[in-house]
Amino acid sequence: MSRFIPPRRTIMTPGPVEADPRVLQAMSSPIVGQFDPVFTTLMNDTMERIRYLFQTDNHWAYPIDGTSRSGMEAVLVSLIEPGDRVLIPVFGRFGYLLTEISERCGAEVHTIEKPWGTVFDAAEVTEKAAEIQPKLIACVHGETSTGCLQPLDTIGRFAREHGMLFVVDAVATIGGVEFRMDDWCVDAVVGGTQKCVSGPSGTAPISYNDRAEAAMQGRKQVEKGIRTDADAEGDVTRRIRSNYFDLTQLQDYWSPRRLNHHTEATSMLYALYEALRVIQEETVEFRWERHRLHEKALCEGIRAMGLELYNDHDAKLPVVHCIRIPEGVDDAAVRETMLTQFGVEIASSFGPLQGVIWRIGSMGYSARRENVYHVLFALEAALVSQGASVVRGEAVQQAMKVYERSPVVS
Amino acid sequence: MSRFIPPRRTIMTPGPVEADPRVLQAMSSPIVGQFDPVFTTLMNDTMERIRYLFQTDNHWAYPIDGTSRSGMEAVLVSLIEPGDRVLIPVFGRFGYLLTEISERCGAEVHTIEKPWGTVFDAAEVTEKAAEIQPKLIACVHGETSTGCLQPLDTIGRFAREHGMLFVVDAVATIGGVEFRMDDWCVDAVVGGTQKCVSGPSGTAPISYNDRAEAAMQGRKQVEKGIRTDADAEGDVTRRIRSNYFDLTQLQDYWSPRRLNHHTEATSMLYALYEALRVIQEETVEFRWERHRLHEKALCEGIRAMGLELYNDHDAKLPVVHCIRIPEGVDDAAVRETMLTQFGVEIASSFGPLQGVIWRIGSMGYSARRENVYHVLFALEAALVSQGASVVRGEAVQQAMKVYERSPVVS
Repeated sequence: MSRFIPPRRTIMTPGPVEADPRVLQAMSSPIVGQFDPVFTTLMNDTMERIRYLFQTDNHWAYPIDGTSRSGMEAVLVSLIEPGDRVLIPVFGRFGYLLTEISERCGAEVHTIEKPWGTVFDAAEVTEKAAEIQPKLIACVHGETSTGCLQPLDTIGRFAREHGMLFVVDAVATIGGVEFRMDDWCVDAVVGGTQKCVSGPSGTAPISYNDRAEAAMQGRKQVEKGIRTDADAEGDVTRRIRSNYFDLTQLQDYWSPRRLNHHTEATSMLYALYEALRVIQEETVEFRWERHRLHEKALCEGIRAMGLELYNDHDAKLPVVHCIRIPEGVDDAAVRETMLTQFGVEIASSFGPLQGVIWRIGSMGYSARRENVYHVLFALEAALVSQGASVVRGEAVQQAMKVYERSPVVS
Repeated sequence: MSRFIPPRRTIMTPGPVEADPRVLQAMSSPIVGQFDPVFTTLMNDTMERIRYLFQTDNHWAYPIDGTSRSGMEAVLVSLIEPGDRVLIPVFGRFGYLLTEISERCGAEVHTIEKPWGTVFDAAEVTEKAAEIQPKLIACVHGETSTGCLQPLDTIGRFAREHGMLFVVDAVATIGGVEFRMDDWCVDAVVGGTQKCVSGPSGTAPISYNDRAEAAMQGRKQVEKGIRTDADAEGDVTRRIRSNYFDLTQLQDYWSPRRLNHHTEATSMLYALYEALRVIQEETVEFRWERHRLHEKALCEGIRAMGLELYNDHDAKLPVVHCIRIPEGVDDAAVRETMLTQFGVEIASSFGPLQGVIWRIGSMGYSARRENVYHVLFALEAALVSQGASVVRGEAVQQAMKVYERSPVVS
């Protein structure tokens, strides 16, 4: 029964990435009770910081106690009623996940698809929306499976003007890539913690506005056993299909009433709070710029090695860098050499891109100068050891030049 | 933007309770990637330890990434298909929660109810089951709202003999009160971590056997984007209503295929693994005995103070001690005095018992000799300061005598 002592890794995947040491330390703080005033104050403070993360004035901003996809499911199952029309623009694997979740909520799901590695012109989405008149449009912001970033603001404004809800999966981008919930007319958003927020996986900050809340109107049921006569009964036939993900119930828990629902995950809230504190100290704007800097350094290095970026275009996701695996190179062998010899982790991809690209992330606390050097160095060494033809000794030099020219301290 | 530094609390509620310091420390370990062999080995080792926790030889034993009720919802939504008949014996608030979740899964829910503070004769449950022939019986083991413990083995054997599934909510008991999954013919079980397991809230160990797995047969769908031609397609009309809680998908993630689903909550798995390691070192049998000892000390003390136990009978839950609030005493004022003056937290209750009883827990790491003394001392002092008529100075003395007489080291 041996103690688990994890090795030190340089995690350059699209998540989970390295957590900020301050976040790791915060989790070792002792537990306090969920109704302890010290804890409920922390809950309120965390809400305020989540608003900042998403750049919103929404009242509702709190974490779902589960991984990122739990946040997505909570938003979708609470907004969708069986038979509702939902439009999902798909440009990678996580678009499919939105369809998968929406279908299970009983939605009539309509999709439009772009080839993996590209994104939509906003007009393609809005034209389809005009045609099918969905109740909501659900869209991925940063698609980690392909390393692409979907511009959102035009779609959001269209949805707002046409009485549709606009729901965004910002799991991969939040805290690392520009995101402006209110300016972009996003009605509900889900973020991830294990990527650019520099925390562990297992909690999913969400926010939604009055329009989204209005869509849940009349669906609320207070649980028997804690229900009082003062609680209005929602329409039982319209009841949200999940108890755990019922945002109308979660609101009561995250409001002064503190009506018991789940038991808030104490240590994960400590982690989220500290991660958000780091973000606020640094400011989101600086973080967006910092992630751009590391992107530039990494990509210059990759190119200098003679490798080709799969997502080298305007819609590139700044925090995920996809490299075409050179012909004749053994995908798994390179990644294994990097991990076992250098302690550096990069990722393969999914479905049609498995074996075709590697995905390197530079997210959150992993987006550091020494990590960028380390992954370039390890990738080059692994490729050389596999007999691949790469330019030697240039990648790190090019990355160093990027940092030398930059006014941003990394 | 101040750092959160929690005060030291003596948490004597029915959860969340104090986490073992070894568990807290484990969470500050650095992140490793979810497909890192170091991490997948940890996943497998955790499965083995969950089997021990539940006393089962089942293959499937893994955590759901959410709080305890997420585990309950995962089991129920994966086993229940709309229209299925479900029988739920209700003897407190968490029985209602099982009805609430089952209804949202589309079940035809049948309940039998006992007055709060009592439990069922097994025959009452089995007779009802014989009458309505449910697909599954879902039952709470330890009902924290009333401090009662439902004997399960007879119900389990009946269900097994009659082709029904027996699902148990062991959130409050697991790791502190005798529980034998296989011997008691439990087909699926959900445990909690923030109670007798001495970890933080936010992960829910579950286990289920071949009978439960068979009930999910044909419902599985591999997600588009990671599906291969070799994946058999389940019946889309029978698809499990939740993606996040789809046990058939989770199995692929917790098996050698490691098919990506959510991103396992790294730090919470570290916590669970360490908590289970502590349990295995101590052995479950010793833990059950240890919790009984602290129960005895606490209850002797409570009685010596002249207070009345609400659940002082054979079906008392050994880890929750319910005290009738003496007439004329201000429930909230006493609890506030205990918290603010002594740093000791106890709990009120729900629904009909709110303001009628206090609930004191002695669970997991909180079940320690010094905590028992501390809560007795603080309760007495708070009651005296409120002008209540209690016997002074006797409670701790009686508790001390219990420990002196006991061969169990606390």
